[in-house]
Amino acid sequence: MNVIKTIREMQNWSDKMRMAGHIIGFVPTMGFLHKGHLELMRIAKQHCDTLVVSIFVNPIQFGPEEDLKTYPRDTHGDLEKLRKLHVDAVFMPQSKDMYPHGFQTEIQVKSLSQHLCGRSRPGHFTGVATVVTKLFNITKPHVAVFGQKDFQQLQVIRRLIIDQNMDIKIIGAPIVREPDGLAMSSRNSYLSHEERKSALCLKQSIDMAHKMLKEGVIDCKAIKTKIKDLILSYPFTQIDYITFCNTNTLEEVDILKDETLLAMAVRVGKTRLIDNTVLRKNMTDQADNQGSGGL
Amino acid sequence: MNVIKTIREMQNWSDKMRMAGHIIGFVPTMGFLHKGHLELMRIAKQHCDTLVVSIFVNPIQFGPEEDLKTYPRDTHGDLEKLRKLHVDAVFMPQSKDMYPHGFQTEIQVKSLSQHLCGRSRPGHFTGVATVVTKLFNITKPHVAVFGQKDFQQLQVIRRLIIDQNMDIKIIGAPIVREPDGLAMSSRNSYLSHEERKSALCLKQSIDMAHKMLKEGVIDCKAIKTKIKDLILSYPFTQIDYITFCNTNTLEEVDILKDETLLAMAVRVGKTRLIDNTVLRKNMTDQADNQGSGGL
Repeated sequence: MNVIKTIREMQNWSDKMRMAGHIIGFVPTMGFLHKGHLELMRIAKQHCDTLVVSIFVNPIQFGPEEDLKTYPRDTHGDLEKLRKLHVDAVFMPQSKDMYPHGFQTEIQVKSLSQHLCGRSRPGHFTGVATVVTKLFNITKPHVAVFGQKDFQQLQVIRRLIIDQNMDIKIIGAPIVREPDGLAMSSRNSYLSHEERKSALCLKQSIDMAHKMLKEGVIDCKAIKTKIKDLILSYPFTQIDYITFCNTNTLEEVDILKDETLLAMAVRVGKTRLIDNTVLRKNMTDQADNQGSGGL
Repeated sequence: MNVIKTIREMQNWSDKMRMAGHIIGFVPTMGFLHKGHLELMRIAKQHCDTLVVSIFVNPIQFGPEEDLKTYPRDTHGDLEKLRKLHVDAVFMPQSKDMYPHGFQTEIQVKSLSQHLCGRSRPGHFTGVATVVTKLFNITKPHVAVFGQKDFQQLQVIRRLIIDQNMDIKIIGAPIVREPDGLAMSSRNSYLSHEERKSALCLKQSIDMAHKMLKEGVIDCKAIKTKIKDLILSYPFTQIDYITFCNTNTLEEVDILKDETLLAMAVRVGKTRLIDNTVLRKNMTDQADNQGSGGL
């Protein structure tokens, strides 16, 4: 496995692979890898013959009050996991090389960035779109995989690729959950033993929404009220948002359509957790979009 | 010569060229080609073995009050010129394919876009950075050539490339002038016979600045006052800006340093003309940066 730390070296490596006719797959991560990330890589491998993974905690996607400094890191453990998965190259750039003196370019996917997490995290998706563009230009992939747990991020990146005419196929990977239902996230490591129990409220809300839809409830407000009550019945919880929206535009809806995204962000203690599901009408069996991981 | 009208076809063509080991050169234009443009292509040919030229009047770099609708076009004449130059491919996309329904991504080179023309043309450089990024991702060049007549545009694009880690070499080409000194521009075609005479005030201002520097004047305000007088002594003229600034950051300076950009925008009748020169101290012979053309 090649561990590559400079931008130039990574670009040269990818050029060589492309010239040799390889199909490059790419999974960007912020490290502290869990099963959700590894699933992204497993899926990527089905679409490429050369897999590049990046580990980079991207400072510009964190707000000033957010957890950049405390974001969990485990480079040694990450590299072990990637070796076992036979990843071909790991790109681990330094912040000072990604954002050198004079850096001043911002990439904004305007409308999609304003909904959901964009409201409580201004600038977050600009940071994501900017770093993803850079990482794509450095690793030069044919295909890249992102987790559906960050559903809004996935849609922002799909739009980014279309709008910039980047010749890259984007694949969304289902959410991966712990046995008790909690969506996998590097930030779960922040949770105390008691908070970890409260964190189950997100998946339970999702299950409840599916159940209510099955029973014929299509009024989003009614479902939302029930979810609020459920979440707030747990200690340490604070709701950031619970939103029903169009899966493509992320614009809010009042009534469940054929396909509606239910997305939520909940603080459990100081930890902000997100989860989501696609609610599908006219389907007898509501398959949850399982899976997790990614940036 | 391949005339390519769809994005997919252009990307496939460039992929094929790259896989065959060709070095792709690229010159983006808005058409109505003049000698300045042809000079960009001649220079590009020195750095590549496959030359792609685009012709696209980019709507998003025009302000609502600007000349998008009247911008001069001559597709037939342009293609004739490009054929004679043995250009390998001409990319002529349609607006509806470049900016389809749902398009919403903006690329901003923040600081550099705010100076000079950025003040009187808000959004212009965002439009330029966005379309250039798209055109680069479509034509996939190794090297691209831009005219120094649009000095700010050239610096914005240099920064864009660095900040986005695009693996493309940018070459700046000297301004090309008419025999009487007027910098070549597609917009010169707007000028009436009388306005055409007044338009000489830009090059005359540049010559005067070089002469004053040679005589030891390094106070920008003193030079600016003389230039203003000169320009306003011609009929139909109206000054948009006359600025002395750092060639890299485009930040204004008061005293001429080793290397200072003198840039100006002047309205002659309804036509907005720009011109610039680099003033170099400690050089006995002040070589003007000749040349023109490009977007």
